[in-house]
Amino acid sequence: MLDLAPFIRDIPDFPQPGIAFKDISPLLADPTAFAASITQLSEPFRDREIDLVAGLEARGFLFGPSVAQVLNVGFVPMRKPGKLPADTTAMSYELEYGTDSIEVHTDAIAPGARVLLVDDVLATGGTLAAAVALVESLDGIVAGASLLLELAFLDGRASLGGIDVHAALEVT
Amino acid sequence: MLDLAPFIRDIPDFPQPGIAFKDISPLLADPTAFAASITQLSEPFRDREIDLVAGLEARGFLFGPSVAQVLNVGFVPMRKPGKLPADTTAMSYELEYGTDSIEVHTDAIAPGARVLLVDDVLATGGTLAAAVALVESLDGIVAGASLLLELAFLDGRASLGGIDVHAALEVT
Repeated sequence: MLDLAPFIRDIPDFPQPGIAFKDISPLLADPTAFAASITQLSEPFRDREIDLVAGLEARGFLFGPSVAQVLNVGFVPMRKPGKLPADTTAMSYELEYGTDSIEVHTDAIAPGARVLLVDDVLATGGTLAAAVALVESLDGIVAGASLLLELAFLDGRASLGGIDVHAALEVT
Repeated sequence: MLDLAPFIRDIPDFPQPGIAFKDISPLLADPTAFAASITQLSEPFRDREIDLVAGLEARGFLFGPSVAQVLNVGFVPMRKPGKLPADTTAMSYELEYGTDSIEVHTDAIAPGARVLLVDDVLATGGTLAAAVALVESLDGIVAGASLLLELAFLDGRASLGGIDVHAALEVT
């Protein structure tokens, strides 16, 4: 199994001083590494009765559709407010200062649908927790979350209500 | 060849009254249609010496990485201002009111690299023209642009300086 760690680079002081941002650009730039990342994101959920993959704007869009192809299911975009054109359902979440929200088309998740959430990085888990709540508000079932990279020291899993979380890479 | 037109739906009066928005959600939701869209986006450029695929945030991210996989090259994200963490080069473009800009990592496009631009919809072409200028500002070569859908009545091609434009679907 290809080790993906060499394809993530640290960018110091982004988005603010003292933060080392995990930049996935080298992984995207390497077709072998990208293919391996899709395999590693999909593999844990291959036999798990997934009905659809949902991905979070914007970097979740880079991986979600390819994971959905491997699992042979559809992809549902979860977007920032005002971007989706049809009837939407929204879920807000707290930021360090203020709140933000994510939206999904209300007709995109049928009651009982088993949804796999895909994103690039799990940090504090605020957005992903909102995605979980959004699926459940439509009576969907969160079958799990698959992340490229988990910043385990931020303990984002604690906010996810015990769902099945898989990360291809972990920073402790 | 699967006709993708039934997988695009019109949403009336979005983002403003009188506009019928082309919503690609049904295509994303159908794994067979999505796979066909990737084939149709990639096919015209299979034998064209493409060095990398660049996609525009956010909906270009849904298709670009998969097209890059078919062509066995890397993917470069072009993003809204302030999103990319390393050194960036920017290009501004005009909106109906005011201006906006897109950015790319300066190290992502080497001089002489042949770049295929991927996005979902070609409308007036403002953003795509900026993407062309951005590639050229880094001494890259725009090998073409591949779109899922072209709104031909808006004549977006006219702003693209004669590059090779391919659209899987066209609305006249």
